[in-house]
Amino acid sequence: MSRVGDTLFFETPVGVETWAAAVGTKEGEGPLGSCFDYVARENRFGKKTWEQAESRMVEIACETALNKAGLTPSRLDCALGGDLLNQCISTGYAMRGVGVPYFGLYGACSTMAESLILGAALVSGGFAQRTLCLASSHFCSAERQYRYPLEYGGQRPPSAQWTATASGAVVLHGGPAPVGITAATAGRIYDPGVTDSANMGAAMAQSAYETLRTFFRDSGQQPADFDLIVTGDLAAIGRDIVIELFRRDGVELDGRYQDCGMLLYDESQDAHAGASGCGCSAAVLCGRLLPDLAAGKLKKVLFCGTGALMSPTSSNQGESIPGICHLLRLEANL
Amino acid sequence: MSRVGDTLFFETPVGVETWAAAVGTKEGEGPLGSCFDYVARENRFGKKTWEQAESRMVEIACETALNKAGLTPSRLDCALGGDLLNQCISTGYAMRGVGVPYFGLYGACSTMAESLILGAALVSGGFAQRTLCLASSHFCSAERQYRYPLEYGGQRPPSAQWTATASGAVVLHGGPAPVGITAATAGRIYDPGVTDSANMGAAMAQSAYETLRTFFRDSGQQPADFDLIVTGDLAAIGRDIVIELFRRDGVELDGRYQDCGMLLYDESQDAHAGASGCGCSAAVLCGRLLPDLAAGKLKKVLFCGTGALMSPTSSNQGESIPGICHLLRLEANL
Repeated sequence: MSRVGDTLFFETPVGVETWAAAVGTKEGEGPLGSCFDYVARENRFGKKTWEQAESRMVEIACETALNKAGLTPSRLDCALGGDLLNQCISTGYAMRGVGVPYFGLYGACSTMAESLILGAALVSGGFAQRTLCLASSHFCSAERQYRYPLEYGGQRPPSAQWTATASGAVVLHGGPAPVGITAATAGRIYDPGVTDSANMGAAMAQSAYETLRTFFRDSGQQPADFDLIVTGDLAAIGRDIVIELFRRDGVELDGRYQDCGMLLYDESQDAHAGASGCGCSAAVLCGRLLPDLAAGKLKKVLFCGTGALMSPTSSNQGESIPGICHLLRLEANL
Repeated sequence: MSRVGDTLFFETPVGVETWAAAVGTKEGEGPLGSCFDYVARENRFGKKTWEQAESRMVEIACETALNKAGLTPSRLDCALGGDLLNQCISTGYAMRGVGVPYFGLYGACSTMAESLILGAALVSGGFAQRTLCLASSHFCSAERQYRYPLEYGGQRPPSAQWTATASGAVVLHGGPAPVGITAATAGRIYDPGVTDSANMGAAMAQSAYETLRTFFRDSGQQPADFDLIVTGDLAAIGRDIVIELFRRDGVELDGRYQDCGMLLYDESQDAHAGASGCGCSAAVLCGRLLPDLAAGKLKKVLFCGTGALMSPTSSNQGESIPGICHLLRLEANL
């Protein structure tokens, strides 16, 4: 392992051993529907409340990831993860049953990437042989917490995003694996002053730009070195801002740059600017990117989790929305 | 570094380079009042809202810790921390100004210990030369979020704890330091089925017992090997449960076991069972334990951060309260 600037380079790649995505009905009906390991028949996942439903979805993602590799929880040295709910209860309650040492994270929608960076460091440094990294969100628990109860039927502006009902779970280890994490850039907080909590993409775009720029500086690589650069949940507005910010530097991203928030739903699904939520990038990673890397359809990918570090309280108090972006370089193990 | 069970052993201790505690007025009037680096004259810390006040308190703790060692934020490779507020906004907004790579954590009141374990691993593994670890809580922001607005004047049962207005910041590095982290046990979640959110100490006690037992098993050490074993915020009821659980195993803790929640206030301060909150253990660590270790008054300490991974929503839904406890072994650098 070596470090340049904010970027860690894992000369011995950290292995992505197994993974799984569990999603809700709307995500199952979207363009990636067939990619996910588990699609709910109904969004309560058999539970009485939305929060318990989200927790059950997290459990399903974890159980599925472990089962795919024939692992039991006892083979895990620790778990790192989180979600959007107050006090991160969907992950906490899910981890109660898994019973492994647990590090709770709060990185808003960047949580999947945050957990992979810390998990990769723990594995690379020999602190853990095997870590479980996870993140989730649920449209219904998020709506009533961040906006309005569903029954209220609140109107949403076109800039608003749709919180994905989705969860991803990834197991990292030090052994051979179809995909490796070969570098990681931990993000700093950037706040371009956006105060409209219905325009999160704009609030997070600068952080994505800055973290990508930091990675390119630290690594000496450029966009053309990658098959795909993917941000977490900037959706239509934020994605365009990132492209424009790089154009000002004379760098063209379009053609090899996508955003998970624009992959999860199609236009007929009325998701406005696109998807958001911790589960968005987590499920696209586990449902689409990792399988494509494992199959050799993709060789080198930059996965950039983006998060908005605000709350309804801070927005009500007039605060602007700070963004953060954590980056992983993923490579097919050829 | 070596690993046995859930415990990491740092043969080369991770150095605790500098630290600081910033607290509110009530904490300043308590038995440890003279120990803290900064005591507020008023609990709004010059801000308009309780949340912004908490954020300012976090900034003060960080600035003070850095100033004590003549460091600037540019010397930090990353920060790890969190708090009790929804979406951890007090830490997020404080870190916006510090401008270093940031990993947000949610470990409830165990956050200080969680940040120290992850920070120590990052330093020990060479992933960071210097990390900032922090945690905070504020009575007024916590009361209105978890219980009632202050103006309501809600009654509290004797088992209730008083959320500390307090923040601690610690800088870890790989160089020489007055105090070293020599081992760490990452906690698992235990849930003894307590559903009374006014009795958090009872909910968290088992996790403290289990993590301590795990550490003693993994290390081959016993309570008598330590000058002090200290839990985060179990307060009167939880502390007694831990003592009783160990007595059933034939192990006597009393005499060398204290709880931060019982150190922060005296009986005249009407704090019921004692103190709680992320800031409780963080401030006692930075105000009392680390200075006593640095001065050689203490040689070997087990610092056990305890957290309750619930939310008002999960309690309203009838869920019991899962507890977690992360442990650090701190040793004076003689």
